[in-house]
Amino acid sequence: MNLVCLDLEGVLVPEIWIAVAEKTGRPELRRTTRDEPDYDKLMRYRLELLDKHGITLPHIQEVIGSLRPLEGALEFMTWLRARTQVIILSDTFEQFAAPLMKQLGWPTLLCHELIVAPTGRITGYQLRMADQKRRAVEALRGLNYHIVAAGDSHNDLSMLLAANHGILFRPTDAFAAANPTLPVTRDHAALRKEIEKVLK
Amino acid sequence: MNLVCLDLEGVLVPEIWIAVAEKTGRPELRRTTRDEPDYDKLMRYRLELLDKHGITLPHIQEVIGSLRPLEGALEFMTWLRARTQVIILSDTFEQFAAPLMKQLGWPTLLCHELIVAPTGRITGYQLRMADQKRRAVEALRGLNYHIVAAGDSHNDLSMLLAANHGILFRPTDAFAAANPTLPVTRDHAALRKEIEKVLK
Repeated sequence: MNLVCLDLEGVLVPEIWIAVAEKTGRPELRRTTRDEPDYDKLMRYRLELLDKHGITLPHIQEVIGSLRPLEGALEFMTWLRARTQVIILSDTFEQFAAPLMKQLGWPTLLCHELIVAPTGRITGYQLRMADQKRRAVEALRGLNYHIVAAGDSHNDLSMLLAANHGILFRPTDAFAAANPTLPVTRDHAALRKEIEKVLK
Repeated sequence: MNLVCLDLEGVLVPEIWIAVAEKTGRPELRRTTRDEPDYDKLMRYRLELLDKHGITLPHIQEVIGSLRPLEGALEFMTWLRARTQVIILSDTFEQFAAPLMKQLGWPTLLCHELIVAPTGRITGYQLRMADQKRRAVEALRGLNYHIVAAGDSHNDLSMLLAANHGILFRPTDAFAAANPTLPVTRDHAALRKEIEKVLK
């Protein structure tokens, strides 16, 4: 039986931190896992910046609420969820993802959690577990699922390699070149085609 | 982080086989896991009956397409999916569940698969794995989720006991009496209240 695991940012919705950087006028927040593969290092850097500039959770949620899924993503998800089971694996946080998940019709999302003070100040974050995308794929394979996974960057790699079939979606040229065994797709129509090809 | 696992039939939608029994005028198909805890035995009995009476998958899908979620189930799911992550664990089959999952907005469903001949005759079934509800709860706990599970009958028991919190929904009096540690709820408002109480 099939189950598709999808990365969220860059595949279904925009990169949240880049949007926050743009709307808050803080270009230093543009760094993503594409730039800094060490996720914990990246997060500590981000939270320090937020603190320094007094940017609270309500500010960020306002920005996220103004984002829309990527063009074609909603239609893609509508097709995929009628075709097979889907779980989104993301290194974002429940508090950030909610307004976007609502727009996508609440697919199941496994991710992390922010620690937030009553003032709205983000005091820290709780990674549910290290390398959670890969671990989720392994757990689902352990439940006898045939896993197809799609993602765009460094933090998806172990998930893509742990799946029965991994697919790259809009990777950088360097990332695609470094992982020549993974097929590359550039839009949701191509991703759909590639998924269809490997579903059992 | 929280994740809620729900049984499908009897909690969100009617018992599919009972509906099939009624609409096909075959009362022998009314047997469910409430009557026969051995699921494999029950399924072999059902498939033999279908064969004997020439009832094919398209017939059954027509019946299932005419069913609606239980009263209050859609509102309950809308609330729950905005509140936390949800996965449905059912011993039904993807081919049966689809028309009802569509009405519920395609929540993630882990279940089993029928083997169907090109004629529409159901030739067999493939259990993805034995005791899959419990195994799914254990796998999700292994991913550091705090699991709340709700179900109504025999095939839910190992899932309810493996969860951090198990909740009975409309159990028979005998089943409730046999499992006195599990709180009993009788409608979706009570189930919602019980879930809220134990979410972290």
